Amino acid sequence: MYGAVMHAPGDVRYEQRDDPGILEPTDAVIRVTAACVCGSDLWPYRGFNRVSRPTPMGHEYVGVVEQVGDAVETIKVGDFVVGSFMASDNTCEVCRAGYQSRCVHVEPMGREGAQAELLRVPLADGTLVATPGMPDADLVPSLLAASDVLGTGWFAADAAQAGPGKTVAVVGDGAVGLLGVLAAKQLGAERIIAMSRHDARQKLALDFGATDIVTERGDEGVARIKELTNGLGAHSVIEAVGTQESMMQAIRATRHGGHVGFVGVSHDVEIPGQELFYATVHLMGGPAPVRRFLPDLIDRIWRREIDPGKVFDLTLPLSQVADAYAAMDERRAIKVLLTPKG
Amino acid sequence: MYGAVMHAPGDVRYEQRDDPGILEPTDAVIRVTAACVCGSDLWPYRGFNRVSRPTPMGHEYVGVVEQVGDAVETIKVGDFVVGSFMASDNTCEVCRAGYQSRCVHVEPMGREGAQAELLRVPLADGTLVATPGMPDADLVPSLLAASDVLGTGWFAADAAQAGPGKTVAVVGDGAVGLLGVLAAKQLGAERIIAMSRHDARQKLALDFGATDIVTERGDEGVARIKELTNGLGAHSVIEAVGTQESMMQAIRATRHGGHVGFVGVSHDVEIPGQELFYATVHLMGGPAPVRRFLPDLIDRIWRREIDPGKVFDLTLPLSQVADAYAAMDERRAIKVLLTPKG
Repeated sequence: MYGAVMHAPGDVRYEQRDDPGILEPTDAVIRVTAACVCGSDLWPYRGFNRVSRPTPMGHEYVGVVEQVGDAVETIKVGDFVVGSFMASDNTCEVCRAGYQSRCVHVEPMGREGAQAELLRVPLADGTLVATPGMPDADLVPSLLAASDVLGTGWFAADAAQAGPGKTVAVVGDGAVGLLGVLAAKQLGAERIIAMSRHDARQKLALDFGATDIVTERGDEGVARIKELTNGLGAHSVIEAVGTQESMMQAIRATRHGGHVGFVGVSHDVEIPGQELFYATVHLMGGPAPVRRFLPDLIDRIWRREIDPGKVFDLTLPLSQVADAYAAMDERRAIKVLLTPKG
Repeated sequence: MYGAVMHAPGDVRYEQRDDPGILEPTDAVIRVTAACVCGSDLWPYRGFNRVSRPTPMGHEYVGVVEQVGDAVETIKVGDFVVGSFMASDNTCEVCRAGYQSRCVHVEPMGREGAQAELLRVPLADGTLVATPGMPDADLVPSLLAASDVLGTGWFAADAAQAGPGKTVAVVGDGAVGLLGVLAAKQLGAERIIAMSRHDARQKLALDFGATDIVTERGDEGVARIKELTNGLGAHSVIEAVGTQESMMQAIRATRHGGHVGFVGVSHDVEIPGQELFYATVHLMGGPAPVRRFLPDLIDRIWRREIDPGKVFDLTLPLSQVADAYAAMDERRAIKVLLTPKG
């Protein structure tokens, strides 16, 4: 089969790889209907993470089950499935508490490389959720979004305790931040402030339910959020970038007693303890336990209540994966959907 | 009147100060029945915080109201009162959300200097809670504990979501940590692990409801907590020290999805963002909003359900305040109660 392999920063190639097979009796192999490029794939692409050897890429996927191992009980050949970017057994104590991304048997799907024609999914019963049937083509982008960016934005909104009566601020206008806006709206937030200085992203934020746009960043951005919230700061802040500036912007934009949900993969972030102490805010974040939310998210998509697939503003055949990375790196695209055999 | 004044690290004196009076119509002046030395008073005493001029000390107090300003409505002359170490209006949005220590009109009581015969209390209606009558003498230490160390330990246990079915670990065996044990027990925790290597403190922890004692610290302490919790870590961890080691010990001893409540005043703490991200724990802490808990705590003490006053293992007349600081600094006493005119 063919798939995406990163050889070095800036060098992603479409090339032949071995077909994946069943390695463990709990595995499934799926034929990928759609995959995509994640903001976190840009860290190694930009040279911020080391690429020590040719590395299969991708961890977001939807597809049709082709094979299952002997121990797989609920997932069946022919099912259309959505999975999280972290494989989890969904039965351990940590999973049952809702933190499947930190399952005691967790396996990052990035190791398998989902930007490919075929994909091995470990712990298939715990990881995959089957849709009620084969989806209409127009639902595929939204189901794919559920696999990571929607689930991650939703987790951030949940961790930030977005809800009725709350003012929510969102730091980061990538796909995750934008879907954090959508999640906050669905969770009933009263006011949603999107921080963005990019026209197309502002429009999408407003479309997803943002009530205010703030273009300032850093200390100026914090000052604007305070102006909009009676000097107090937002009740709930979503951090969806992962830099020192964005994390401090999120903490400082939150009112005392409020909640920060952070999902940007932290890069060289150091949180000063004394400032956090006097900020007196709740902090919760990490790799999103997307699996917790998947059944609900699939249901909302299936009933066409939400359309998170709108974050895909470019669709390319998988064979053009190099162009997909370049478009996201240059911020020409918010998020690129890839179709194998396209 | 007389009170404690710190002139330099290691130099606390009992000396004459001006009598406080009503400065604002919302003020009260109380005659202090008992005050005490806080773990946080030891930071400047040990030279970790600067002492730039002679500084009145103390922020924990109970006493009898002597004067009230014209705008004071609920607190009356003659009331026996307990107040928090942070004066708060208890009416602003932040107070109503339960974070009175970060009230928009907050005034740290440390500025007034509660280790004294008389004390001005700003925002008296918001800050002070009157007891149902004059307390029996044996209740005074417990009511004094409610003013800070009990309220702080309780907040930490609440922030760590201690409760039924939970395993709680407590980092720090000072008065706050020990009362965190008591709070966790009262909140219904199933298992409470006190981290201490000091005999008298271990005994008090067990007396307050600890089920296990761990004497190891740092990485070894974390490993012991994991051993005791099926490899997962505690559901809830109370951090009551404020150093880099104790904060990281708390984060690392918490299971994924668990909660850290931190109340040790942070000194030179830097939390690595990437480790926090992959820890995926809830973090909440800061100056405790003791006022939120005071009515409930006073009620429990009044009904003799809890005896937090046991943390006072030394009582001295206020005139011997220098000895009180030395005893705590040298860890000869867990906490020293001071009686004006004693």
